[in-house]
Amino acid sequence: MCKYSFLDDYSEGCHPRILAALADTNLVQQTAYGNDDYSAQARKLICEHLGGKDIPIYFVAGGTLANIIITSSVLRSHEAVIAASTGHIVVRETGAIEATGHKIITVATENGKLASSDIEAALASNAHYPHMAKPRLVYISNATEVGTIYTKAELQELSKTCKRNDLLLVLDGARLGVALTANGNDLTLKDIGELTDIFWIGGTKAGTLMGEAIVIPNKSLAEEFDFHIKQRGGLLAKGRLLGLQFTELFTAGLFFELTRHANAMAEKLSVAITKSGYVLAAPTESNQIFPLLPNTMIKILQGKYGFYVWEKADENHSVIRLVTSWATNEKQVDSLISDIKDWIHFQE
Amino acid sequence: MCKYSFLDDYSEGCHPRILAALADTNLVQQTAYGNDDYSAQARKLICEHLGGKDIPIYFVAGGTLANIIITSSVLRSHEAVIAASTGHIVVRETGAIEATGHKIITVATENGKLASSDIEAALASNAHYPHMAKPRLVYISNATEVGTIYTKAELQELSKTCKRNDLLLVLDGARLGVALTANGNDLTLKDIGELTDIFWIGGTKAGTLMGEAIVIPNKSLAEEFDFHIKQRGGLLAKGRLLGLQFTELFTAGLFFELTRHANAMAEKLSVAITKSGYVLAAPTESNQIFPLLPNTMIKILQGKYGFYVWEKADENHSVIRLVTSWATNEKQVDSLISDIKDWIHFQE
Amino acid sequence: MCKYSFLDDYSEGCHPRILAALADTNLVQQTAYGNDDYSAQARKLICEHLGGKDIPIYFVAGGTLANIIITSSVLRSHEAVIAASTGHIVVRETGAIEATGHKIITVATENGKLASSDIEAALASNAHYPHMAKPRLVYISNATEVGTIYTKAELQELSKTCKRNDLLLVLDGARLGVALTANGNDLTLKDIGELTDIFWIGGTKAGTLMGEAIVIPNKSLAEEFDFHIKQRGGLLAKGRLLGLQFTELFTAGLFFELTRHANAMAEKLSVAITKSGYVLAAPTESNQIFPLLPNTMIKILQGKYGFYVWEKADENHSVIRLVTSWATNEKQVDSLISDIKDWIHFQE
Amino acid sequence: MCKYSFLDDYSEGCHPRILAALADTNLVQQTAYGNDDYSAQARKLICEHLGGKDIPIYFVAGGTLANIIITSSVLRSHEAVIAASTGHIVVRETGAIEATGHKIITVATENGKLASSDIEAALASNAHYPHMAKPRLVYISNATEVGTIYTKAELQELSKTCKRNDLLLVLDGARLGVALTANGNDLTLKDIGELTDIFWIGGTKAGTLMGEAIVIPNKSLAEEFDFHIKQRGGLLAKGRLLGLQFTELFTAGLFFELTRHANAMAEKLSVAITKSGYVLAAPTESNQIFPLLPNTMIKILQGKYGFYVWEKADENHSVIRLVTSWATNEKQVDSLISDIKDWIHFQE
Repeated sequence: MCKYSFLDDYSEGCHPRILAALADTNLVQQTAYGNDDYSAQARKLICEHLGGKDIPIYFVAGGTLANIIITSSVLRSHEAVIAASTGHIVVRETGAIEATGHKIITVATENGKLASSDIEAALASNAHYPHMAKPRLVYISNATEVGTIYTKAELQELSKTCKRNDLLLVLDGARLGVALTANGNDLTLKDIGELTDIFWIGGTKAGTLMGEAIVIPNKSLAEEFDFHIKQRGGLLAKGRLLGLQFTELFTAGLFFELTRHANAMAEKLSVAITKSGYVLAAPTESNQIFPLLPNTMIKILQGKYGFYVWEKADENHSVIRLVTSWATNEKQVDSLISDIKDWIHFQE
Repeated sequence: MCKYSFLDDYSEGCHPRILAALADTNLVQQTAYGNDDYSAQARKLICEHLGGKDIPIYFVAGGTLANIIITSSVLRSHEAVIAASTGHIVVRETGAIEATGHKIITVATENGKLASSDIEAALASNAHYPHMAKPRLVYISNATEVGTIYTKAELQELSKTCKRNDLLLVLDGARLGVALTANGNDLTLKDIGELTDIFWIGGTKAGTLMGEAIVIPNKSLAEEFDFHIKQRGGLLAKGRLLGLQFTELFTAGLFFELTRHANAMAEKLSVAITKSGYVLAAPTESNQIFPLLPNTMIKILQGKYGFYVWEKADENHSVIRLVTSWATNEKQVDSLISDIKDWIHFQE
Repeated sequence: MCKYSFLDDYSEGCHPRILAALADTNLVQQTAYGNDDYSAQARKLICEHLGGKDIPIYFVAGGTLANIIITSSVLRSHEAVIAASTGHIVVRETGAIEATGHKIITVATENGKLASSDIEAALASNAHYPHMAKPRLVYISNATEVGTIYTKAELQELSKTCKRNDLLLVLDGARLGVALTANGNDLTLKDIGELTDIFWIGGTKAGTLMGEAIVIPNKSLAEEFDFHIKQRGGLLAKGRLLGLQFTELFTAGLFFELTRHANAMAEKLSVAITKSGYVLAAPTESNQIFPLLPNTMIKILQGKYGFYVWEKADENHSVIRLVTSWATNEKQVDSLISDIKDWIHFQE
Repeated sequence: MCKYSFLDDYSEGCHPRILAALADTNLVQQTAYGNDDYSAQARKLICEHLGGKDIPIYFVAGGTLANIIITSSVLRSHEAVIAASTGHIVVRETGAIEATGHKIITVATENGKLASSDIEAALASNAHYPHMAKPRLVYISNATEVGTIYTKAELQELSKTCKRNDLLLVLDGARLGVALTANGNDLTLKDIGELTDIFWIGGTKAGTLMGEAIVIPNKSLAEEFDFHIKQRGGLLAKGRLLGLQFTELFTAGLFFELTRHANAMAEKLSVAITKSGYVLAAPTESNQIFPLLPNTMIKILQGKYGFYVWEKADENHSVIRLVTSWATNEKQVDSLISDIKDWIHFQE
């Protein structure tokens, strides 16, 4: 690719510290299937963020796998998931949850976030016992598919609603890093551990080669969880590869440093674009930016940068999506900013 | 139950002719698993309505079973169903389709009927290959969950849209009888055979003890269909019970006679209720009637009749649902009509 | 069929008392989905046999459906079933259990019966956590696929082994009637209720049109069981049809009277065949008889009777299988006996 | 681990060339989801071994995932797999295949290898249409679970039997490398491509961090295969990680060089052990060695080396399993050999 890509947050390999750790440990023999020293170390490091409690943690290669394993492990076959209609499991996982036998009850939302009222509504309209699947698990993601983030008050409210209705709260953290280091964030990993039953921490979009850490604060749900990891194809022989990467990510705050960089680049772009006289179709909450630009400018930008044209705004304008990451090159950000500014001057 | 029930169309046993046939044939030995003479005879009788063609037909005990078997037989695991958000498989089958591994893509509709534009919209918003389940089967029911029926033009249009987009069209006919004998109907069984890939004819709501006939005009879809009937628990040892009932239903037009009675009773009620000065929340298309009545009247009627209070209209009025059937006693209809009239006189 | 069939125990309709009851109650309106008076009555009658305790009972149309619902309701997805390699769920249900996602661990047995040592062996060879599915449910049937029956001592031993190993014991009673009225039987329904977690009583092979009663003595397993009945397509709208038949079957001991007849006919055949100088390939324990006969005789018998040629014994002899039932006509039994005798005389 | 491990072939990281390639390409931006340059290059390199034909190839993280995706993609729900009772999918994948809804029909074998007669027998005993799941896919692995390998003649015979019976032949190649470089081998990758419908090449046990390459010579089976990879959680965002590793493995014959080393170490051990006067419980065909040793010696060896005690031979002897790999240190092999020799001298 000769253009610089703002398409996603997984276009590069991994943070160099991870490569170095792989090289350092490469020929050390380790026990297989997640019983290696590095996985143990990674678990310990993550638990420190959760208040030091001994909380079950498992590592798997990818996010869809994490969602499959969690759902099929904790639900009986008549139990259903409640999710926003924009949820990753609803529209970006090829029916993976349904393929394990479970219905997803979808709720339309404005900004990708579920509210307690959405849950109450879903419960009310799915109460015709036993003709309807029984809602049992609430799925949210933070950041959401559209880059919005939950506040502590919002998550507390959701947690209360779930507990009151005997629902499990599961948080998909594919982009948890950018959520926790966003400007508007007031949540910590510890909060999330206290407010959810299961959540997972995304490595892939935060600087690892691959890998997500499934954390199960509601310990009863961890019972025989390993069987499900193996049954769904998620048990890597060389679990060390996952453990070592998370060890690096949670040593000296690398995880937060990397996702803070993604957010900083997103903010720099947002501010500059606004200053240049353009509006954003949605406020920038994490590492996704949705500028509304003239189609003529978009066409020129496409020659140098990769990004998605998100939706048509009017005859002459469209919304584009720019994604920043742990690897985003600030020079390319500056270049994009000046191209946007220059375009203006040239037009006028 | 001391009240007379207008709750549903399956509160009684079966048409007496069916009981008589059961008694007549009871001790005749027959081959098991649907290979009996009566099932053969029923297939022949139904095929006569389909233009005399030799079309594969299978009998199963219930409607959810029919939908499960059809879906799991014809779809690969990555393929999804498109259905109205009010569809029976969506809201009244406890996630049965998802339990076989398939996603249902739901479309909001006004009157329970899918239009070609709904299908096109569902295709457009589920095209992100391979991150989205692939739409492959369109599920409709006639009559729909809310009692509306498809016209021939509508079904032709749907059929064309499906063919154009390589989609299978499946029609759930739990209440096909009342649809085909409704006042507004211009479809025949033959039309339905020509316009759908698979459809099923509901016996349970048309005067049998139980049983539905799955018809597969798109013969390639019948390949190894028996395996799926058996695998999903639908292969009755005494298949004769299903075959014999459908033989009776399709002898001398009993099926149409019985569902015509249901419609006639519905119309009688509709006309009388309207004449008495009340409005219907929806036009009566088949055997479901939705009168909007004063709550005070509803309370009195509930003392003598069984029916569902469907939804609140305003502080003092609600919509109720009355269902008529092959077994509806005209005297009880007359009684209900006069109770509604009397109540009026008394109030004035 | 002009031949008289000894092929199976489901070639006829149902016991006349059931038809009479259907006629008597036909137009009485009843609540749907198993909440009718007859189902309540049948539950009460069956519970009386279980020591008067209030034990959850559900009715479904067929045996495969019963096995599907039980398994998918009580197991988590990583849990497996232990069964004899001749078990009905293993070789006669088209992979129905696997289709709900569960592995069956099979054990070779001599006579279709599982012993405690079989279970212990299966546990030992499936203990590689978490690389192997976890054994959790032991499936047996009584009578077995090959007509053998469990003694009380055997079932007690199995029950103890299951409890000690945290395994659920499920008994498929498709032919429970002939087992409980067999000569060698010392079990009662009450014993079975005390020794198993779930069992079901077969109606289809004991004189009903269809229907099996699922009994759940381990009440915790009945929690939300209805959802699974509905999800797997087993919830008949006119549940009355099932309830009424079981009411008849358990009124005045009809169930036991009918299956006793089947056993008596089997014994009569066994004794006569042995007296005529032929051997049985297996002792007759219930309603299946396996005579070893000359092929020349078999050929002649096939002209008048329907039965399966079970296996080749040597060049000139084969084992055939004769099945008797509640409906077996004693005159036909006598005729068959005399044909066997006559053939002897004629040959000599 | 202070002991040197002969436990398995996945105790180390990866071949250093792979680490170097990861470092070299780390910050190059690449398209996600397997559409990167490295995956394209790896496909090209593998195809060169398949006779230059353009054969569909997909990369996934692990072997169980590969088996899940293949099976659920190519089978309809009533179709079953035939496998040796020692097969990995039978006893080491926690019921993963069954969890996708498919039955496995197992066949007892002596040495882990399926023969045509096994397949014919499985077909014959599963032919009771439609009461039995329909055999449709034959699963073998090369090398097998117990280290044996298929000859070309054997694979040709299997292939013919499968074609004649309309069965798909799938080869699990978790240890394909050691099979293809074994002394007794006469198969090439090209042969395997011609004789199977789908096979996969294991990277994990041949020197990668993780990853297996699914090759689909029967191209019709590749249709919409991507959906299944995604649906089962196998589509890595950074597919580059898989592509790059297979590019290295298939550049300059690294794959064969590494697995040849594993075999050479196994042979060295086998020869030395035999020379020292001990027998092998099974001939060494690839990288697994099964020496029968005195328990007293085993106890001493366990102090320095990791390995499994496979089974008891008699009161004083047991069979142990030693596994060699691409990473096996020859010095440790020599050390083990001399420890075995020394023990002898000391004892005598």
